[in-house]
Amino acid sequence: MLKNFKLIIEYDGTAYHGWQRQKDLPTIQGEIENALLTMAGDPVTLIGSGRTDAGVHAMAQVAHFKSNTRIPPQAFQKGFNSLLENDIVVKACVQVDQNFHARYDVKSKTYRYRILNRPLPEAVGRQYAWHIPQKLDPDAMPRAISHILGRHDFKAFEGTGSPRSDTRRHIFEAELFQNEGDYLDIVIEADGFLKFMVRNIVGTLADVGRGKITAQDFKEILISKNRNLAGATAPPQGLCLMQVKY
Amino acid sequence: MLKNFKLIIEYDGTAYHGWQRQKDLPTIQGEIENALLTMAGDPVTLIGSGRTDAGVHAMAQVAHFKSNTRIPPQAFQKGFNSLLENDIVVKACVQVDQNFHARYDVKSKTYRYRILNRPLPEAVGRQYAWHIPQKLDPDAMPRAISHILGRHDFKAFEGTGSPRSDTRRHIFEAELFQNEGDYLDIVIEADGFLKFMVRNIVGTLADVGRGKITAQDFKEILISKNRNLAGATAPPQGLCLMQVKY
Repeated sequence: MLKNFKLIIEYDGTAYHGWQRQKDLPTIQGEIENALLTMAGDPVTLIGSGRTDAGVHAMAQVAHFKSNTRIPPQAFQKGFNSLLENDIVVKACVQVDQNFHARYDVKSKTYRYRILNRPLPEAVGRQYAWHIPQKLDPDAMPRAISHILGRHDFKAFEGTGSPRSDTRRHIFEAELFQNEGDYLDIVIEADGFLKFMVRNIVGTLADVGRGKITAQDFKEILISKNRNLAGATAPPQGLCLMQVKY
Repeated sequence: MLKNFKLIIEYDGTAYHGWQRQKDLPTIQGEIENALLTMAGDPVTLIGSGRTDAGVHAMAQVAHFKSNTRIPPQAFQKGFNSLLENDIVVKACVQVDQNFHARYDVKSKTYRYRILNRPLPEAVGRQYAWHIPQKLDPDAMPRAISHILGRHDFKAFEGTGSPRSDTRRHIFEAELFQNEGDYLDIVIEADGFLKFMVRNIVGTLADVGRGKITAQDFKEILISKNRNLAGATAPPQGLCLMQVKY
């Protein structure tokens, strides 16, 4: 009988071409599946809660895989952490109910996008934030971001090339935190995200912060469902998948 | 007439073979001198407050160089930050008195050594801490470190291969901070440091934390002036030069 294993995974996405396995390119899924093959002896498919793009990080990505292995979960975890490069850490490995599905069962996901907002860039930690040298308006951005709360059609913030039939998503939390060290953290929890959705929202929010558009313009872009009106896609390194709830 | 320029430099040492210029190897001094050569047109020697080892970071290394350039300091700073890779940031560039010397005039330097003390390693930020999975004794380590305060002969903690004629140094501050996220930060301010001194002190402190030796043993190792009694050298990535005072 196949056992079902759930993983919680932290990764630094800097060196990877995103989550999803690709031929001849290093990806998070690919690296973990390779480790699984080494341990379990057979090819095993790992199902993540969703993809993350190239260069995006995760503090707690969730995934599951099925195997008829006799290896206990704790031994799997140790094996992963010794086989994988140290930019991927398996924080937990537990056996779960046969029916648990890392993607279909997601209730919500929380992403954090970090902006370093000061004239000078940083050397230490530069892999984890988007540096914006111009002073961003600390009042306009929270007003703008509040407009995404609740259920909306996010077509205006969907990346090109992978349209979803249903582009409506429910946003449970959308907040901007000013942290020590000139960091602005934008935290968004939703029942799901479209491709590039957080990065397109953040890119457009940055235009609000820079005074290029108003918080009201931001709202109208959302309502327009027109991607051409939204700002540029924010770079990947500021983005981190913080939590997946089931 | 030669002008004297003072730089404050932040760097992520991960990709470098330390501060000091080496033939055919990337170093911080070498990279900045290359940028200087591009801007000033002539080879210029950059004098740092002291060397940092391969893999060691700095939030505020200080250096000076002399040049008869007509480039204003602010233009130098901009030029550095556009020419250098983004793991080196020139945080300040100012013209200073002819007599200022980045090494000879040092009053004190402050280093921080960061330990991540929990069973699991981290993926995000792993470049900036030493992961020790065993729980370290939170009482014994501060007691041990207090023994280095004041003026002592640190021969027991000097790295081999580069003996100094005078191995006495004065420690102004030596403290251990328990920070959020399972970090232990060891902060040491002194009038100067021997090669590998902080990393040898931290390696020996870790032995105290693990219960291999007592805080009293630590004190006796210091008094012994015998390197063979001290612990292993802690790895470079946890170390960061925080401040240089003049």
